[in-house]
Amino acid sequence: MNLEERYQQIQLDVLKKIRPAKKERELLESKYAEISSKLEKALQDAKIQARIELLGSFSRDTWISGNRDIDIFIILPYESKFSPKDLLNEIKKGIKLDWIRKHAKHPYLYAITDDIEIEILPCYEFELGRKIRSAVDRSPNHKQFIKQNLPVGSNEEVRLLKQFMKGTETYGAEIKVHGFSGYLVELLIINSDGKFLNVLKNASQLLNARITFQENLVIDVEKFKDDSLIVIDPTDEARNVASAVKEQTLANFVAAAQSFLKNPSMHFFFPKQIKITDRKIQIMKDSSVNICAIFHKEPKLADDILWGQLRRFEKGLYKFLDKNLINPIKVDSIVSNNEIITLILTEKQHTPFLQWNNGPPVNKDTQWEFLNKYSRREEVVFGPAIIGNRWKVLLSKKPYYLEDLIKNAIKENAITLPSHLDLKLKSIEIVCKEDLINRFSENKNRSFFLYKLLLGKPSYLIEE
Amino acid sequence: MNLEERYQQIQLDVLKKIRPAKKERELLESKYAEISSKLEKALQDAKIQARIELLGSFSRDTWISGNRDIDIFIILPYESKFSPKDLLNEIKKGIKLDWIRKHAKHPYLYAITDDIEIEILPCYEFELGRKIRSAVDRSPNHKQFIKQNLPVGSNEEVRLLKQFMKGTETYGAEIKVHGFSGYLVELLIINSDGKFLNVLKNASQLLNARITFQENLVIDVEKFKDDSLIVIDPTDEARNVASAVKEQTLANFVAAAQSFLKNPSMHFFFPKQIKITDRKIQIMKDSSVNICAIFHKEPKLADDILWGQLRRFEKGLYKFLDKNLINPIKVDSIVSNNEIITLILTEKQHTPFLQWNNGPPVNKDTQWEFLNKYSRREEVVFGPAIIGNRWKVLLSKKPYYLEDLIKNAIKENAITLPSHLDLKLKSIEIVCKEDLINRFSENKNRSFFLYKLLLGKPSYLIEE
Repeated sequence: MNLEERYQQIQLDVLKKIRPAKKERELLESKYAEISSKLEKALQDAKIQARIELLGSFSRDTWISGNRDIDIFIILPYESKFSPKDLLNEIKKGIKLDWIRKHAKHPYLYAITDDIEIEILPCYEFELGRKIRSAVDRSPNHKQFIKQNLPVGSNEEVRLLKQFMKGTETYGAEIKVHGFSGYLVELLIINSDGKFLNVLKNASQLLNARITFQENLVIDVEKFKDDSLIVIDPTDEARNVASAVKEQTLANFVAAAQSFLKNPSMHFFFPKQIKITDRKIQIMKDSSVNICAIFHKEPKLADDILWGQLRRFEKGLYKFLDKNLINPIKVDSIVSNNEIITLILTEKQHTPFLQWNNGPPVNKDTQWEFLNKYSRREEVVFGPAIIGNRWKVLLSKKPYYLEDLIKNAIKENAITLPSHLDLKLKSIEIVCKEDLINRFSENKNRSFFLYKLLLGKPSYLIEE
Repeated sequence: MNLEERYQQIQLDVLKKIRPAKKERELLESKYAEISSKLEKALQDAKIQARIELLGSFSRDTWISGNRDIDIFIILPYESKFSPKDLLNEIKKGIKLDWIRKHAKHPYLYAITDDIEIEILPCYEFELGRKIRSAVDRSPNHKQFIKQNLPVGSNEEVRLLKQFMKGTETYGAEIKVHGFSGYLVELLIINSDGKFLNVLKNASQLLNARITFQENLVIDVEKFKDDSLIVIDPTDEARNVASAVKEQTLANFVAAAQSFLKNPSMHFFFPKQIKITDRKIQIMKDSSVNICAIFHKEPKLADDILWGQLRRFEKGLYKFLDKNLINPIKVDSIVSNNEIITLILTEKQHTPFLQWNNGPPVNKDTQWEFLNKYSRREEVVFGPAIIGNRWKVLLSKKPYYLEDLIKNAIKENAITLPSHLDLKLKSIEIVCKEDLINRFSENKNRSFFLYKLLLGKPSYLIEE
């Protein structure tokens, strides 16, 4: 088999696994029919003028078998006096399900029934140039654009790209992943002649790419200067559909795409499940990388808010460790069994014994204070020395081991602790090295996470 | 005593020590009379048309007692067919002294007699706008400018500034020091109303200063962009008299000047001679700074050439150690007993156990080579990981101790070894830590140098 044949074979094999069967489709269709008729009635009873539209991957036939979502939008006229809140109250009265009120940038109802996730989202009629009233007002237009522009049969290609991104941990615009949304995946397929393989083949050009769907469209570059990838929303040129995609996630996708083309395998779509054997536990214990973990309680928060806080905490921690010269390698978190575990890998076990302290230039009056302070201190091992045109001292410092360094950072507020995480010293537990590996080895999910974290490489490069 | 009175007292005390006595002056005068009359005769005999002029600090009455130099210039007409070499040959015939032929940027004769250093330097008549024929053609004009512009009595102020610079190791334009020449000292005194104290008081403005002696003179800044201090030669506006002054030496002077004004003492002019006691040897042994020294043979070279090569070697060594993450603090050399000893201070004893290796960006074809190389290597402890948009690996490295690191650098030509220094492995000796301190303690000069180097601070900050 040449490469192209192997790509084709793998795509067929993947589709076999992810293409929904007739039965699944019928199940979703009947569930939608049932709920939408109840919805119509509820609206009528409440005398609310609004139209119902099925959106999301089910409506576009781009969902992946097993991911059973029905996203129903209730579109109010732009001038409607009803608020999303009013609407959701009426619906809860009319349809008896175990509704959970959720709130992203917009309020919505969520329920699970017959293994299907139902979402009901109120919004207002969208019109270009008019201010949107709710964050999801554009969604019906997105569907319209995709329906009109996605070539026939390319819904299967969307499925392939989604699964590829799932397998390479780049799918999902949520904060935890900072990756590609379903709509963005569809746009990328449209942009590559409807072909999954073309998206992969063009991937190397995605870093800092600018994609539009209208010719001669002038992009307001200044507005998107912090974005790694710009894909202008064909239904609203003021919006970058890819604004959630972080450089790191984009780079991960680009690398995965190219690696797949070079060396195709099913593992890009379905990562190997690696069994953590005693040998692998020993490998972890033998690693020259230094590990510690902070165990803290999982607060009840919407996913995006929780991960927003966690990612902020990780970033602050990384910066603090970097400043303290203990050379952080990676900080990442896992949520499992109502616990959050923030894992820290560093090169060094402790901060250095000697550290420079930079003083003022020799022609500034502030030098006297510096010289007074350091001329006779015992911890000065070299200096005050003039290096370049500044005074500097090399100080002997008490070294802090990673565990104590983290404790100090928390105790002395050296890093900003996000308000919703319980990171007080008495609420957390810090476990390091062998103790940590031993404790993790009792939990398959955790030990696999740690093993992958310690290897540092993408799943598709992990062997055996 | 207020500060101004203390300055005055110290200046008087210093002048008492450095002002030449009547006897010394008479000795130099008679020696000059004797040699110049012999010179006149030698020129006559050889039928060489030239005039004789006494230059240098003796001619300006700015020399410091004990520094007995007579600099005699023989000025040939610009069109003269005689070369400096011809001239020097005739002089050697005419005056019987133990002449040494020397060569800086120009050839000259050098002899010592009655404890006086005699230099005879041929040059050509200088005229502004005409190309100079020898590097010292401007010297007679320098003397003329100083004679005309140095206020009466300010020759004593020149002596003070010279001695201050000697005491703070900033005097001398030679490569070893990269400091202030005698002519530059005289110009600085003229520029500060003829007063030594004014030069110190204005010192903080010297960093990146531009000094001229003609009003409205436009400086060709581009030409001097690498110079830390610009003092335009009043006899030739194309020349920066301060071009030899390195930023480091200038900063040392600025700091010393301000420290003197703040806390005046004789020690700025005459540094304390510190006795290396057993306690100080113990202090050196207890230092947390890591020390090694390379012992190599002193080649027979003119000072500027030797130090040019040494400073280049030190710089290359520093860069190499920095690149290898052993954190160099200082590299400096001492020449004593026909040996050169290059001393190296570092923060770390060895190179790190872990080191990052940065690979190509994820969208470049060179990534395959990198991934092939590192995907299965045992020394990879983390990665190949995608960090930002690049592949990186963290490698486990064999740590090199400073001694071996230096040996490797020399063996593997990792630093440029200046051609005139004998730095082959078999010619050098590397001695570290206690062994070095023990060996140095046998020699007063060396142990004092090492003690000061290890303290890292200017002499005037050293106590007891």
